[in-house]
Amino acid sequence: MTGFTDHPWLGGLLGDSETTAIWGPAQQMRHMLAFEAAFTAALGAVGRISADKAQQVARLIVEFQPDLDALKTATMRDGVVVPELVAQLKRAAGADAAAIHAGATSQDVIDTALALTIKASNALLADRLSALDASFENLANRFGDQIIMGRTRMQAAMPMRFAERLATWSQPVARHALRLDRLRPEIEVLSLGGAVGDRAALADDANAIAAEMAAGLGLYNPPKAQHAMRDHIADYANLLSLVTGSLGKMGQDICLMAQQGIEEISLQGGGGSSAMPHKHNPILAELLVSNARFNATQLAGIHHALIHEHERSGAAWVLEWMILPQMAAVTARSLSAAQDLCARITRIG
Amino acid sequence: MTGFTDHPWLGGLLGDSETTAIWGPAQQMRHMLAFEAAFTAALGAVGRISADKAQQVARLIVEFQPDLDALKTATMRDGVVVPELVAQLKRAAGADAAAIHAGATSQDVIDTALALTIKASNALLADRLSALDASFENLANRFGDQIIMGRTRMQAAMPMRFAERLATWSQPVARHALRLDRLRPEIEVLSLGGAVGDRAALADDANAIAAEMAAGLGLYNPPKAQHAMRDHIADYANLLSLVTGSLGKMGQDICLMAQQGIEEISLQGGGGSSAMPHKHNPILAELLVSNARFNATQLAGIHHALIHEHERSGAAWVLEWMILPQMAAVTARSLSAAQDLCARITRIG
Amino acid sequence: MTGFTDHPWLGGLLGDSETTAIWGPAQQMRHMLAFEAAFTAALGAVGRISADKAQQVARLIVEFQPDLDALKTATMRDGVVVPELVAQLKRAAGADAAAIHAGATSQDVIDTALALTIKASNALLADRLSALDASFENLANRFGDQIIMGRTRMQAAMPMRFAERLATWSQPVARHALRLDRLRPEIEVLSLGGAVGDRAALADDANAIAAEMAAGLGLYNPPKAQHAMRDHIADYANLLSLVTGSLGKMGQDICLMAQQGIEEISLQGGGGSSAMPHKHNPILAELLVSNARFNATQLAGIHHALIHEHERSGAAWVLEWMILPQMAAVTARSLSAAQDLCARITRIG
Amino acid sequence: MTGFTDHPWLGGLLGDSETTAIWGPAQQMRHMLAFEAAFTAALGAVGRISADKAQQVARLIVEFQPDLDALKTATMRDGVVVPELVAQLKRAAGADAAAIHAGATSQDVIDTALALTIKASNALLADRLSALDASFENLANRFGDQIIMGRTRMQAAMPMRFAERLATWSQPVARHALRLDRLRPEIEVLSLGGAVGDRAALADDANAIAAEMAAGLGLYNPPKAQHAMRDHIADYANLLSLVTGSLGKMGQDICLMAQQGIEEISLQGGGGSSAMPHKHNPILAELLVSNARFNATQLAGIHHALIHEHERSGAAWVLEWMILPQMAAVTARSLSAAQDLCARITRIG
Repeated sequence: MTGFTDHPWLGGLLGDSETTAIWGPAQQMRHMLAFEAAFTAALGAVGRISADKAQQVARLIVEFQPDLDALKTATMRDGVVVPELVAQLKRAAGADAAAIHAGATSQDVIDTALALTIKASNALLADRLSALDASFENLANRFGDQIIMGRTRMQAAMPMRFAERLATWSQPVARHALRLDRLRPEIEVLSLGGAVGDRAALADDANAIAAEMAAGLGLYNPPKAQHAMRDHIADYANLLSLVTGSLGKMGQDICLMAQQGIEEISLQGGGGSSAMPHKHNPILAELLVSNARFNATQLAGIHHALIHEHERSGAAWVLEWMILPQMAAVTARSLSAAQDLCARITRIG
Repeated sequence: MTGFTDHPWLGGLLGDSETTAIWGPAQQMRHMLAFEAAFTAALGAVGRISADKAQQVARLIVEFQPDLDALKTATMRDGVVVPELVAQLKRAAGADAAAIHAGATSQDVIDTALALTIKASNALLADRLSALDASFENLANRFGDQIIMGRTRMQAAMPMRFAERLATWSQPVARHALRLDRLRPEIEVLSLGGAVGDRAALADDANAIAAEMAAGLGLYNPPKAQHAMRDHIADYANLLSLVTGSLGKMGQDICLMAQQGIEEISLQGGGGSSAMPHKHNPILAELLVSNARFNATQLAGIHHALIHEHERSGAAWVLEWMILPQMAAVTARSLSAAQDLCARITRIG
Repeated sequence: MTGFTDHPWLGGLLGDSETTAIWGPAQQMRHMLAFEAAFTAALGAVGRISADKAQQVARLIVEFQPDLDALKTATMRDGVVVPELVAQLKRAAGADAAAIHAGATSQDVIDTALALTIKASNALLADRLSALDASFENLANRFGDQIIMGRTRMQAAMPMRFAERLATWSQPVARHALRLDRLRPEIEVLSLGGAVGDRAALADDANAIAAEMAAGLGLYNPPKAQHAMRDHIADYANLLSLVTGSLGKMGQDICLMAQQGIEEISLQGGGGSSAMPHKHNPILAELLVSNARFNATQLAGIHHALIHEHERSGAAWVLEWMILPQMAAVTARSLSAAQDLCARITRIG
Repeated sequence: MTGFTDHPWLGGLLGDSETTAIWGPAQQMRHMLAFEAAFTAALGAVGRISADKAQQVARLIVEFQPDLDALKTATMRDGVVVPELVAQLKRAAGADAAAIHAGATSQDVIDTALALTIKASNALLADRLSALDASFENLANRFGDQIIMGRTRMQAAMPMRFAERLATWSQPVARHALRLDRLRPEIEVLSLGGAVGDRAALADDANAIAAEMAAGLGLYNPPKAQHAMRDHIADYANLLSLVTGSLGKMGQDICLMAQQGIEEISLQGGGGSSAMPHKHNPILAELLVSNARFNATQLAGIHHALIHEHERSGAAWVLEWMILPQMAAVTARSLSAAQDLCARITRIG
C-alpha cells in the first residue's frame, strides 16, 4: 500500500476522512455508472430508444454491482476499466444491451467520472478556503496589532505589525477562492466525444445527448470533449499547488517563529517525541511545508501530461491518474491542517 | 555561457532576437532606473521634495550609466545589485542623494523592473498568440476537411476530419490568449513595500507615491507589495507552461504524422543531417516538444519558490531569477516556431 | 483512496501483488517492531540488561499487536507513529519498560524499518532485472538479426539489425543491475543515532549496540546515522528513475513500432477498447512511458528533500515518505511489465 | 540574455569565471573541431587515407575559424550545428573533403564535444570537492568541540558538539568525490556510432578508429555509442544535484544558525541591504539553498530526457542541451560558494 492518505496510521497525519471518501474507488464507480445511466437516459430523451427502456436500463446501471475481480484483471489487459465494466453492464441488460454506451468511449466515462469527483472535491475545497479565511480574520482581530520582528533574508529587519505577515498568508488564500470559482465551470465538465472525440457515432443527436447528460449530471457542457486538450486539468493542478504553496509559506513562517530563541508564536498541542518528551514539535506547520513541496513537484508531471499524442495518449492520461488524485487530497489536507493550526495559536509577538 | 537563447549558434534554434532583447540586461537596467526615476518623481508629486529637484534627479537617474564591473562585484557581496546601484546613483546626485530610493527596498526595484519586462514580454506573447490563432484558422480553411486517421493510444482508430485534430491545437491557444489577458493586471504590477513590505518608511504618503509611480510606469497598483506572496508569479509561470505544453502536443502530433509509413503531413524545409543528406527532420516540431518538457520541468521550481520565509526569502527569490526568464523566452520561442511550422505545412491527409 | 498500486481495479494495471505486500503497512509494522526487538536484544548483548530480560522483552515486542486506531490518532498529533507505538510497547512490558527504546529516536525506528523494506524490495528488483536480462537475451536470439528501419529524429534513416535497438534497451538494464548491487550496502543500513544523531544517550555502548543490531537485522552498519544526510536515499531514488526511464525508452519504441503504417513489431494480447473492438492497444508499452515520467517527476521531490534543517527536518522527511514508496512500487511494476511485454513479442521487422 | 551565469551583474553571484569559460561556446567549438580532427587522424591511422593527408587535414580542422552567422542560421534550419560546420570544413578542405566526417554523425560530434567539456568540468569539480573537504577539516579543527544546540523538527532538542552537525555537511561531500571518480569513466567517453549508432559506415575499421580517437582525445571508449542510452548522463546529473543538495543543507543550516535570537555562527562580510545598512545577509548560504532547489528541479528534466525515441530523439536530446550545462555551472558555483562560506566563519556555538 503506497498511498499515504488512507494508510492505517500515516493517514491520520497525511489524509482526512472526507477527502478519502470523495476520492475513493466507491465514488469513482458510482460516478462511472452515473455517466452510463445518464447516457442511456439521454438516448431515451432524444428518442433513440423508448423512454421506458431508457428509464429501466438507467436504473439497472445505477444499481449495478460490478464484479471487481474481473474489473481488475481486465484493467491489467485493457489499460482501462471501462471495456469490462460495459461488458458486465451489457450482460446484465441482456436484450437491452444496445441501450448502453454505444457511441461513447472509455475516456468519456472516466473523464466524466473524474469531473464528478472533482466537483465534490471543489465543494469541500471551497468550504475549507472559506473557513480558513474566517480563521485568518479571527487571527487578525486577536493578534493583528501585535508587534513582531519583520525579517528579510532570514535576518531581523524592522519591527512591524503581525497583520502584515498574516496578510501574506490570507491574501493569497482569498485569491485562491476566486480562482477556484473561476475554474469550476472549466473543470466540472461532461466528456462526450466518442471513439476519436468527434462524436461521429452519435451523428445529429450528439449535441442534444450531451446537453441532456450535462443537465442530468450537474456538469458543464463544453463545445468539444477535452480528451486530448488537458489545459484545464493542468490549470486546475496549478491552482491546487498554488493553494498548498501559499500554505507552505505560512507553515514555514510558523516553524521559524516557533523556534527557541525566536518564540514569536505559541501553539497548543504540538507533537511529542519518542526520545525527548519535553519537545513540542510544530507538526502541522511542517506538514504544510511537506505538502507544498509535494504538490510543487507533482505539478510538473501534470504539465508533462499535456503532451497527448493524437486523439488520446494512454501514457499521458495514465500519468494524470497517478498524480492528480493525490494532489487534490494533499490540498484538502493542507487546508484542514492550516485551519487546525490557526485554532492552536495562543500567542503572537 | 550556459544560457541557450543567446548562444552564438544554438540561439538560432532556441531563441529569437525580439525575446532576447526584451529579457536582456540592458532592459533590466533601464527598468530599474525607471523605477528609481519614478520614485523620485513621485516624491516630488507628493511634495516631499521640490518639483524642480524631483525632475532634475529623475532625469539624472534615467540617463545614468552605471559602472557594471562594480555592480558585478557588489552583487557577489550583497546578493542583489540594488544597494550598489543606489550608491552609484547617490554619488552621482551629490547633494540630492536623499531624493533617491529612501523608503524603497531592493525587492521593490527588482520586482518592478521584472514587471516592466513582463509587460513587454506579454505584449509580444499576445501578438504571437493572435498570429498563431490566425494561422490555425488558415490551416482550417485549407485543410480542415481533409480526412486523416484518428488515432488513440498510438493505434489507428477511426478516420476523421483534420479539423478535429487541429481543434486540439487551436482551442487551447485561444484560451491561453484569454488567460493572458486576465493575468496581465495581476502581474504587470508596481512593487512598493519598503524594507519589510509595509511601506512604513513612507508613512502617510505611501499610497499617493505608489499611485503616482504606477501611473508613471504604466503598471497596475496592487493593495500590498507582493514581496513574499508569489502566487501571481507562479500562476503566470503556469500559463507559460500551458502555452508550451499545448504547442508540445501539436509538435508531437506533427512529428508522428510526418513519419515514413504514416505521412499524413508534408512540411517545407525540414532540417538536414550531417550523415544522411536525404533526411528532412521535423526540427521545429521537435523543438515544440523540448520546450514543453523544459517548461513543465521549470514550473515545479517556481512553485517551490512560493515558500518564502518571512517578509523576503533570498533563497526563493533567487530561484525565480534563475528560472522565470528562461520560461518566458522558451514560451515566446515556441510561439514563433509554431507559427513558422504552420506556414510550412503543404499537405495534410 | 489515492494510492494507485493497491486500487481495486487500477491496481491490476499499476501495481503488482508482490510489491504491494513488500511496501504494505503490515511489513512496515513488522520492521518497526524488529528494530525495537533488536535494540532490546542488543541492550542484553552488551550487558545493559540481563540476557533473560532482553530475550523476553524482545519476544514480547516481535509478537506485539498494536492498537492501530490509537496509532492513527497519535500520528496526527506527533507527526510520527513511534512515540505512541513505544508507549504501547512500554505499557505491555510493564516493569520492563526501561528495556525498550531508551536511547533511540523515532527516526532510527522508521529509517531502519524503511531499510528493511528496501532490502526486500531490492531483492525483488534484482530478481526482476535479472529475469528481464534473460528475456532480452532471448529476444536477441530470436530476432536480433531481423532488419528494421533505424530512425533518428522520428525519421527513417538507415536499415539496421534489431539487435542494435535491443541493445539500447538491454545494456542500460544490465548496468542498472550493477548499480543496484553497488548501492545496496549504502541503503540497506541500520539507523541508530538517538535524539540528535550523536548516539550520546548510549554512551560507550553505542557502537557495540549498533553492531549487534545490524548483524541481527541483516543490515549494514554505517559510521553515523543518516538522519539528516539523505544522499543515499536520493541516489537510490535516482536509480529507481534510471530503471523506469530506460524502460520508458523501450516502451516508447514499442508504441512507435506498433503503429499502423510502421508495424515493425507484433504483440500478443493487446488491450481492448470500449468503442472499437478491433483495436489492440499496446497497454504495457504505454505503461512503461507513464511510469518513466512518473518517476522522473518524483525524483525532483526526493532531491528537494535533501535539504534537511539541522539534525532532522520533519518537512523534508515526510516528503520522502510521500514519494519514495511509490517510486519503488512503480519501478517494480515497470520491470514486471517489461518482462511481460518481451514475452508477448511474436514478430520483429 | 536569459542565462544567469554570465549575466553582467548576476554572474557575479550566480556564476564564476572558470566555469563560464569551461562551458562557453568557444570551448564547445574547440571540442567539436577536436572530434573532427581526431576522426580524420584516425582515418589516417587505420590506413583509410594517407598519413600525410590525415595530418594536413586534421591541422586544418583544428585551426579552422567557422562562420558563426552561417552556423546560427543553419542551426535554426537543421536543429543542430554540425551539418553546416562540416560543410564549411569540407569547403575549406577542397579536394580533401572526403577525409572529413564521413561515417560519423552529428550526435557523435556534439556528444563527444560535451564529453570533453564535462571532462574539464569534472577536473574543476574534483578540485573544488577536495578543497572543500580540506575546509571542512579546518572547521572541524577550529570549532569541532564547540557546543551547539542540536535541533530536530525546528525545535531545540539536546546540546551537542558542532562536529556532529559539520559531519552532516562533510561526509556527503567526501562521498560525492568518490562518486565523481567512479562516474568519470562512464561520462568522459567518445561517441562514435554513425548515422543510426551501429558504426555500419565504418565497417571493419570502426573499432580501430574509435580506439584511436579515444586515445587521441583522452576519453574512454565505450562498447557502443550512447546516442539513445542516456543513463550515464542522467546518473551524472543526479550526482550534480546530490552535490548541490548536500550543500543546500549546509546553506540552510547556516541561514538558521545566523538568525538573531539563535546566533550560533558568525560570518565575515555578509551582504548589504539597500534599505537597511545595518543588516548582514547570509548571501552565500542562501545561494546554496537556491542552487540546491534549482538542480533538484532540473534533474527531473534530464530524467524525462531518458525517453529517446528509436536511435535518436531530437526532442529529448535538445532538452539535455537546455538543462545540463546550467546544472554543471550551478554545481561548480555552489562548491566555490561553500568554500568561501567556510572561510568566512569566525565563530560557532
